Amino acid sequence: MKTPKISEAVIRRLPVYLRYLQYLREMNITTVSSHELGQNLDMNPAQIRKDLAYFGEFGRKGIGYDVQYLIEKIKQILKLDRRLNVALVGAGNLGTALSNYRRFTNEKLKIVGIFDKFSEKIGKKIGPLQVQSLDKLSEMVKELDIKIGIITVPASEAQSVADLMIRSGIKGILNFAPVILKVPPEIPVRNADVTTELESLAYYIE
Amino acid sequence: MKTPKISEAVIRRLPVYLRYLQYLREMNITTVSSHELGQNLDMNPAQIRKDLAYFGEFGRKGIGYDVQYLIEKIKQILKLDRRLNVALVGAGNLGTALSNYRRFTNEKLKIVGIFDKFSEKIGKKIGPLQVQSLDKLSEMVKELDIKIGIITVPASEAQSVADLMIRSGIKGILNFAPVILKVPPEIPVRNADVTTELESLAYYIE
Repeated sequence: MKTPKISEAVIRRLPVYLRYLQYLREMNITTVSSHELGQNLDMNPAQIRKDLAYFGEFGRKGIGYDVQYLIEKIKQILKLDRRLNVALVGAGNLGTALSNYRRFTNEKLKIVGIFDKFSEKIGKKIGPLQVQSLDKLSEMVKELDIKIGIITVPASEAQSVADLMIRSGIKGILNFAPVILKVPPEIPVRNADVTTELESLAYYIE
Repeated sequence: MKTPKISEAVIRRLPVYLRYLQYLREMNITTVSSHELGQNLDMNPAQIRKDLAYFGEFGRKGIGYDVQYLIEKIKQILKLDRRLNVALVGAGNLGTALSNYRRFTNEKLKIVGIFDKFSEKIGKKIGPLQVQSLDKLSEMVKELDIKIGIITVPASEAQSVADLMIRSGIKGILNFAPVILKVPPEIPVRNADVTTELESLAYYIE
């Protein structure tokens, strides 16, 4: 079956489903209904059914979805059934936290290089990696076939780091700096901004 | 004008608009079209127009939206025109990074307490705050009228921290631990999971 074109909104929800399905698998739960998914993910079950219909008509009325099958299918769609190497630039507290983040260490998305421009950071050990000079980024992107860059530098440095990443051949960016990056249209950027999450939470607090 | 009931999806997009509008204001740009917003935020302009229509019919054809007015209106809707005190539990690298995060220091959402259960962290200074014992959480939530909790502890500790936060009177949680928290339905939880962002990025990498 050929996969139809899927909207960005759906693509962004798939990892959320994946996370919860993996949690269910750990709990040895083999099937789940869209209603249960909706309750646990705080989403509309009809929306979930519509999203999952991209994978075919395999959800069964009164039984639900097969957890293991859905995990495999979502990984296929997201192309997570391959290894993708990641470079992180900015070895401060946030960069260190992300590099040590449990999930990064056993998944296909793997941080294989940590870079910083400040000499006092270079050589510092974070998990199994040593912080390298930012001057080495281009060389390492080619050598290790790095596809994704994570930016954890201050806002004032983020654009020049993004430019360097793109010149070096990186194909997608996850940006933690609170700034809107200017990048060519073919380079996807995700902005991980904790303030937006906090702000949307404020709405619900009386 | 009374504000109509707004869906969660819209509420989650409003801070994204707010961020970009604040950026435009810094650049001394006073009006913006839904088309420009869409281009810069990688969203459908029709979706943006629909979302912004909740604030009234003030976008003008061929001219666009007034940046300053929209900023004020979105802040009102999100109830960001008041101070909300925040407690952070988990003074590791991620907690330290968040506590130092520039935007938290001058906005209405303010981290006023950092807590950890490990004695080697207690007393450590992060910015203007000293890490306090987790035993003090309940007392401080009442004393400082803390409404929001940020969880930056390891996955295995997150549920018990969430339980303690809720018992202490916290009304909403931003969770960074890679685990799905069980909370009463009246407590909103946002999961800030960097892996989901990375995974949705993978889709766009050939």
